[in-house]
Formats: sequence, structure tokens, C-alpha cells
Amino acid sequence: MTTPLRLGIAGLGTVGIGVVKIIQAHADLLALRSGRPVEITAVSARDRGRNRDADISRYQWEPSAVDLARREDVDVFVELIGGDEGVAREAIEAALASGKDVVTANKALLAIHGQALAEAAEAAGRVIRFEAAVAGGIPVIKTLTESLAGNRIRRVMGVMNGTCNYILTRMQSAGLPYEAVFEEARALGYLEADPTLDVGGIDASHKLAILAAIAFGSRPAFDAVEIEGIERVSIDDINRAADMGYRIKLLGVAQMTGRGLEQRMSPCLVPADSPLGQLEGGTNMVVLEGDAVGQIVLRGAGAGEGPTASAVMSDIIEIARGVRLPTFGQPAAALARPTPARTAVPAAYYLRLTLIDKPGALAKVATVLGDSGISVDRMRQYGHAAGTAPVLIVTHKTTPDAIDHAIAALPGTGVIEGEPVELRIEEV
Amino acid sequence: MTTPLRLGIAGLGTVGIGVVKIIQAHADLLALRSGRPVEITAVSARDRGRNRDADISRYQWEPSAVDLARREDVDVFVELIGGDEGVAREAIEAALASGKDVVTANKALLAIHGQALAEAAEAAGRVIRFEAAVAGGIPVIKTLTESLAGNRIRRVMGVMNGTCNYILTRMQSAGLPYEAVFEEARALGYLEADPTLDVGGIDASHKLAILAAIAFGSRPAFDAVEIEGIERVSIDDINRAADMGYRIKLLGVAQMTGRGLEQRMSPCLVPADSPLGQLEGGTNMVVLEGDAVGQIVLRGAGAGEGPTASAVMSDIIEIARGVRLPTFGQPAAALARPTPARTAVPAAYYLRLTLIDKPGALAKVATVLGDSGISVDRMRQYGHAAGTAPVLIVTHKTTPDAIDHAIAALPGTGVIEGEPVELRIEEV
Repeated sequence: MTTPLRLGIAGLGTVGIGVVKIIQAHADLLALRSGRPVEITAVSARDRGRNRDADISRYQWEPSAVDLARREDVDVFVELIGGDEGVAREAIEAALASGKDVVTANKALLAIHGQALAEAAEAAGRVIRFEAAVAGGIPVIKTLTESLAGNRIRRVMGVMNGTCNYILTRMQSAGLPYEAVFEEARALGYLEADPTLDVGGIDASHKLAILAAIAFGSRPAFDAVEIEGIERVSIDDINRAADMGYRIKLLGVAQMTGRGLEQRMSPCLVPADSPLGQLEGGTNMVVLEGDAVGQIVLRGAGAGEGPTASAVMSDIIEIARGVRLPTFGQPAAALARPTPARTAVPAAYYLRLTLIDKPGALAKVATVLGDSGISVDRMRQYGHAAGTAPVLIVTHKTTPDAIDHAIAALPGTGVIEGEPVELRIEEV
Repeated sequence: MTTPLRLGIAGLGTVGIGVVKIIQAHADLLALRSGRPVEITAVSARDRGRNRDADISRYQWEPSAVDLARREDVDVFVELIGGDEGVAREAIEAALASGKDVVTANKALLAIHGQALAEAAEAAGRVIRFEAAVAGGIPVIKTLTESLAGNRIRRVMGVMNGTCNYILTRMQSAGLPYEAVFEEARALGYLEADPTLDVGGIDASHKLAILAAIAFGSRPAFDAVEIEGIERVSIDDINRAADMGYRIKLLGVAQMTGRGLEQRMSPCLVPADSPLGQLEGGTNMVVLEGDAVGQIVLRGAGAGEGPTASAVMSDIIEIARGVRLPTFGQPAAALARPTPARTAVPAAYYLRLTLIDKPGALAKVATVLGDSGISVDRMRQYGHAAGTAPVLIVTHKTTPDAIDHAIAALPGTGVIEGEPVELRIEEV
């Protein structure tokens, strides 16, 4: 196989230019490792004239990504435009229909239309690879699809949005409230144009839905992810959790239970001395648990030019080497329609209440917890002023239903000010 | 492809039985993910009658591993016997010569005879896969060969012998000397029959040589690894290092420099709060650094039935899926003969001296360090009795040659009792 593999690259932002730079810098290495030269035939982007960090004048320019996807002199269509609708989707469909393999970093598209794309790829006898869609340079798609293929997966878990992890760790280290660090992150250019994608947990949930599909052999079901962002995480909770030996992380968890597929993305407490607890700044971490392998932890840069381009290159080299894998690790027709299940796996919970300082107040709280079937592992009442006292409770393992019951009943006691805060303590 | 993939498994110890159990438990899952059934045709082991944790009566019994490797009804020969010579090697050669693919967990064989085996596989048009040979369930072979194939690798580093990490972390947590924990580990069955393989750093060096070959596109060169085991690590050094914010790990490091390929396996200091520093017990960790991806950290169980069998299964499924990769990630003929280089990359060093308590003693030590071109970052002299005082020094970055020079000159000062201890502080 010394025929070159010919690429058409659509999207020349940070990642696209990163890919161009690797192909230009490492041509010999890539040819050696791929068994054939890897070449760029043509490129496409919104603005041809824009100043870019790589020379693209040697490639043919294609004004339309869809036309690029259909070119006869392209073997692999590399989609780095983004977005779950519009030109990215249209171009990928065009590429498959005209017999090209596809490499993409588009998590939203795969999380939402993954099943249709997997079916289209199979019908066309082509492959779609998407290592860069989840956790940047961390090889989590390959590890799940290939390295753990002999395992029944128990749980997939991870911190997969670097911006949220940056905000949470920066709040703690600088002692700043959410709003202040959010503005810092915006000024540093860490946030998406629509910041809800980051801080609202959407972006990380796209990634979780993709991992869950591979892990559990089911159709991607982004709609079924229970999502809560980091907007309501307060510096108070970060500090109190630290007092109790925990860190707060935006954690995605997917697991198959007897009731169905649980997928949740939410701020959780994890032990401060666990690998997840120790994860600082924009770094990502994915934890994979299989019945044979036990627990595997993968850590690395979740975004950025080099790491994301590295993941795109691994897909391109895989195709160049003649490796052809089913999109989500098994035939599309065999992917189950998952039964989405609301979180029911028991866990310990962290509760923070503002107690009104009057005789019998704590007894009333304890009674509500007891009536909800919740037993308390640790409780701390902090020094107080102005007639109220902050109270922290770490429960023993209990069900989300029991917690909901208690949270609903607590205001009725008349001894609580405002809303109680509850955060799940995920076992890691 | 619905033709079953037929396996011949040689070696029914812990790992072999682990593989049998996965194939029996997950037949449907494996067929779905592989695109074809995965079946065991025949097995071979030293003792047919031995009580085993899985029913092997349904498979044909082959008294000789070499005969098993040549059977017409076997597609993949799975070698789980071990050893760098003898029947394992002979059987693998027989398998390749008779047109079988090979899956093995044999690190010694690959580290020592990897080039010859890669050439034999290529000549026969077959593949050899060996994910289980390095770091058990951690997918480091696949990550290096495939996920990071778009990177020029800068450095590969890791804790790859769980027994040594168990001994070192147990010494620290229990405050016990090396000899006591060594005996504990032996009683627990953690040590190889020849414990030098573990504590002498041999086993971990086999793994390092394999990783270096893939990372740097060179022939495996186990002979060129600078090896030092953990036998001379004292509880004193563990405690002193902890005082200074470090942990001692048996760390393998491979990096390509202008002078050649540096491969070293030695007890090193790493920051206590780094992922490597936080690694407890028998867990393994591999750190991979590439020019695009930055740093990737992989963590998991480095040994044991399930994790190792999981890695073996990933190779089997890869072959079942029709994936065919060159042994060390590129054609065998293109693997460079590495120029082995003695460690020259500068680092900070930890020195421990026993200073004889007389006027001007410390000045004499400082003079030797200065004359060797070494500058001191931190120094501590501990309280003392009986006319000598322990002195700890953390140097600024310096060369191994400068350290050797100082170590050779220090006894000549007449103010040092015994041998100075020096340990490299690896930058992680």
C-alpha cells in the first residue's frame, strides 16, 4: 500500500491548522507508521484570506465543504467545522454517500445524530472515526472500543470539560465566587461563544453520551442525560466540601443498571485525594471500569490545538493503515435502544442547610432525614451570627429519591432559611 | 466475516485461565464486537490434571505447545507460557512459520528477541500483538502505536512493576525497612520465583525496552537499559525524601537525545503531589509525552488475572476484526539500530551524606560540590548524636557526570562516613 491517502480538510480553525501542521512537519514519520504517505488534497473554510499559522497555499481551495466532501481526489473527509446541524452534517452525509471515510471532532453531531450516521456509514461501507470528539488528546474512544472490548463495562466516568474544571479549581485556589471566575474565563477566551455549552454541562454531556453508546452497546442518547451545570456551585460549597475532604467536580457518569441506562452530568463531590479530586485546571480525566480490567484512569489535555490534532491524526493514520471499525464498536443495527433511567444508584450525599437558630431546630432536621430513610455519617454546625447557622451533613449511602423527599420536606419544618443545597458524593 | 476465529492457548496459569473465563462468559459480546465468534480450539499446559478455575474439558488438549502452534485448526496462537527462551520462543516461531497470528504477554521475549520476531512475522505475513506484555490492563501499547502515531514522542516514563511499588509504598506507610517488606511481599506471593526480576528492575526494564522501541522507532534494546533495582532504597531515604516533598519510585524513563537513546530504570524521586508520586500499592502508571499531545497519563492494574486477560483479549479481538499492525508500529526493516546513550539529560539530584561532626566539615562538602559544578537548591542537616550528622542535599539541575564526579570526590574529604547516597529527581 504505497498509494497516498488523500485528505480533504473542512474547517481551518485551531484544530484544522493543528492537523495541517502535523502533516507538514511529520510527513516521513506518518508515511512510515501508516505504511503510505498521508497527503492533503484540498481544504475548505469560511474565510480563505484569513491569516493562518500554516501555509495552506499548496492545497486546492474548495469554497464549499459539501463540494469538498464529494471530490473524487479525496479519500477521507476530515470535518472540523462543528455544530450538530448545517454544513457539518450535510458535508459528512455527502462524504459517506460518495464513498469517503470520515474523521470528525464533532461531539454534538455524534451525540445527537450518531445512530443515523453510523447507519449511513455502514450502508456505504465507510467508517466514521471521532477520537477527537471526546476529551481531546486522551485516547478514550480507542481504549473503550478496542482495549476494553473484552470487558463488560460497569461504569464510565469523567471530567470532560476543561473550562468547568478550570473555573471550579480557580474558585477554590483564589477564593473567588463563581461569577468572578466566569468573567476571568471569558476574558481568557476559555468559553464557547455560547457559554452555556460549557458551564451548563452540554458539551460534556455530548461526550458522555458518545462514551455511553460505545460502553453499553446502545444508541447515543444525549436527550436522556440528566444535566446540571456548574452555575449554582458556590464558593461556600467548595470551601465546606474541602473542609470535609472533598473537591467539587463537574462529573459525568454513565452506568447500566437493572432499570436501564443512567447518564448524569452534574457537580459532584469526590475525595480530595482521589485521581479525580486531584485534577487541576483545564486537564481532563476519564475513568473506565470493566469487569475484567478493573479501573483504568486516563488523563491529559482535553482541548487545544496539539492534543486535539493528535487525536484527529490517530484516526487518519488508523484509516491509512487499513483499520476499519464499526462506529460505536459494533454493527449499528445491533445497538440497543437504551431505556433511560433516572439516577437510582445509591450514593452518599452532601447537604448544606441554613438553620434558623431556635431550640429544637436541629432535631426537626434530623427527624425529616430519619423519616426519609436517610442516616447521617457526619454533621458539622458552624459558628454563626444573625440568628442562623450553616449546617453541613454528609449522609450514609442513600437513594436520590430519599434525598429528594428530604429536600422537599425540609422547608416545611420552618427551621430552614432558603433552599437546602444537595450534591452527590460519587464513589470513585 | 462470520467465520469463527479459532484460538490455541498455550499456558493455563492465572492469565491463561483468565482468558478462558472471559471467552466463556462473554461469547455473545465478543462476537458482536469482533464481527465473528471467538472460539478456543485447543489448549496446552504443563499439567493437564491440575485443578483449574475454569472448565477446559471442552477444548482439545495438546501436550506440546509447539504442536499446538502448528495445528491446522488454529488461526491465532496465544502464548502465555513466558520466558525469553525455550518453549515459548520455539512455539511462537512455529506459529508464525505455519501461518498463524500470535498474541503474547511475554515481555522478556519481546524485549530480547523482538526484532527477530518482528522480522519473522513480516516475512510470514502474520502479526504479533502483545498488549499484555506491558503494564497489564493499561492500554499502553495501543496508545503508543496508534493513538500517538501522529506525534514525535519526547519521553516515555512509568512505574511498571507493581511489586516494587507495593514494597516502596508499604515501607513508607508502615515505616518498615526494605528487608521486612520484601519478606512480607514474598509471603503474599507478590514476588516472581526469581525475585531479582522484580526488585532488580529486570521485569520493568523489559517493558521499558518494548515501549522505547515503539516510541522511537528503534529495535528493542533491553541490553542497553541502565538498570538499578530497589534493593538499596532505605527507609531512611524514603522518610527524608518525604520530608522534602518527594516519593521514591522505581521509575523507567526512555528518551531520545542528540547523543542517542537513553533508557534507565532506577529508584527516582518524584514530587509527592504528582500523579506518579501519588501512585500507591501495586498500581501501574505510564506517562507518554508527544510533541502534539503533550502529556498523557495512563493508570491501572499492572498485573493480575482480569487486567492481564483483558489486554490479551483486546489483541485477540483486534485480530478478529481484521486489524493488522506492524509489530513495533512500523516495518521491522525500518526500525533503527539505536545508539545507546548513557544518561546525560540533566536533572536535580538528592544526596544523603553522613557528615562527621568537626569544624569545617560542611565547607569541605560544599567545596567538592562547587568544584563539580553542582549548585545546591536546598540543604538540611539533621540533629545528631555520636559524632555524625545526616545531611540532605537537593541540587539544582546538574548532569549525571557532575554527580558522579562529586560522589567520587566526597570520601576524599575525610568528613564523610560511609558511601553518599544519590538519587535522581526525575522531572514529571
